[in-house]
Amino acid sequence: MAGTDQSRGVLPENFPKGPKIILVRPQLGENIGMCARAMLNCGLTDLRIVAPRDGWPNDAAISAASGAVMVIENAKLYNSTEDAAADLNFIVATTARDRDLTKNVIDPAGLPAALSGHGAAHCGILFGPERTGLHNGEIAMADCILNIPLNPGFSSLNLAQAVLLAGYHWFSSLDAAQPESQTDLASKDKIVNVMKHLTDELEASGFFTSPDKMPGMKINIRNLLSRMQWTEQDVNTFHGIIASLSGKKAWK
Amino acid sequence: MAGTDQSRGVLPENFPKGPKIILVRPQLGENIGMCARAMLNCGLTDLRIVAPRDGWPNDAAISAASGAVMVIENAKLYNSTEDAAADLNFIVATTARDRDLTKNVIDPAGLPAALSGHGAAHCGILFGPERTGLHNGEIAMADCILNIPLNPGFSSLNLAQAVLLAGYHWFSSLDAAQPESQTDLASKDKIVNVMKHLTDELEASGFFTSPDKMPGMKINIRNLLSRMQWTEQDVNTFHGIIASLSGKKAWK
Repeated sequence: MAGTDQSRGVLPENFPKGPKIILVRPQLGENIGMCARAMLNCGLTDLRIVAPRDGWPNDAAISAASGAVMVIENAKLYNSTEDAAADLNFIVATTARDRDLTKNVIDPAGLPAALSGHGAAHCGILFGPERTGLHNGEIAMADCILNIPLNPGFSSLNLAQAVLLAGYHWFSSLDAAQPESQTDLASKDKIVNVMKHLTDELEASGFFTSPDKMPGMKINIRNLLSRMQWTEQDVNTFHGIIASLSGKKAWK
Repeated sequence: MAGTDQSRGVLPENFPKGPKIILVRPQLGENIGMCARAMLNCGLTDLRIVAPRDGWPNDAAISAASGAVMVIENAKLYNSTEDAAADLNFIVATTARDRDLTKNVIDPAGLPAALSGHGAAHCGILFGPERTGLHNGEIAMADCILNIPLNPGFSSLNLAQAVLLAGYHWFSSLDAAQPESQTDLASKDKIVNVMKHLTDELEASGFFTSPDKMPGMKINIRNLLSRMQWTEQDVNTFHGIIASLSGKKAWK
């Protein structure tokens, strides 16, 4: 497609920061490289790789990147998906089918709107391994699901093709000048804290009648509440709600 | 991306006929195969190949097609771009840059509208060789130009990725491509009810210290909680949480 020499791709100065692309347990280095190329085509440079099967760095990835060397060189390696997502505010999980109907499901055209308001640079898009896709636990972490509608008779999409469709729709949305993202979302530690306030008081009030089931029930409650996107104000309000209902003004 | 066996991809019965994909002087068999895969992902089956460098059939193409065998088997071979386009009514030429400003230039999102009215099956989309692109004479044949806007610092797009972006936008424009909406979300009356349970108990516990502000605060709490997408199970869990914290097993 190109006539010019682009042996080392670059990003224009002051280009808007896009979402992180998080490849979870990718198998083939070649696919990682092709993802890097597709990313840089779309102005995305932040690649995170969770537990790649064949280790890292990977010569096949560098070769397949075809000039998107900066993406490969800047890639960050993680042991777990949780680690790779820890500092992000909004997570999108890419799945072949809708596996969690309680989450918002978007298609690639809906991606820019889903990311807007969170600040794209604080968002991450998860892509699972080539054949098996993401675990249910990884999908549970996500704020919404990216589903790419394709021919139902042949919906097996190459990993880099999935990354391209997500990246291209993000890139295409940039023309419509987007205001700089301002997010007043509460940081993860404050959210963890208010959830602990709730589960502590529930425990004190006798909510968990079966000790065996308590850990699982606590996770369910956190899953339920994590679907709200908490602002600082929401966190404060919720502390007040719990304190009022439990009749205890002080906690901890 | 796929969990199911799709070793031989198919097209659903009565699927709308899409435009022909015309690869002009493609070099690598692997790229031809990846184009075939991307095509079938998007419900496109008519591949035309003009003077492939390494001849035809090509084992590397079959291997890279990863199950899109029907596209490879049905591919038609031509000696010239004119021959490949001879029976078509409307030709789109894909270029990296706008090289002929006298023609209408569209991006992938504009493709479905450009094809409509001509009958997609009577349209062809030309893609040039990997490095050099189409000749000016080939571009001159076209009725319009497809330009894929990308990072100007790295706009070299893999051939199959260009085919995917064109194909995906065509596919997405079909009604059949809309994702099924399925939901087990709780009905609105149940959500209203659980919110009332919460605000009733908050009122009983003295949460609303200022009567004047109570209506507004109730609305804020409902806004906060409405950002969760409640399932029936969530509603039941939350009734239990409120009852436990308030120490009152019965409500209403």
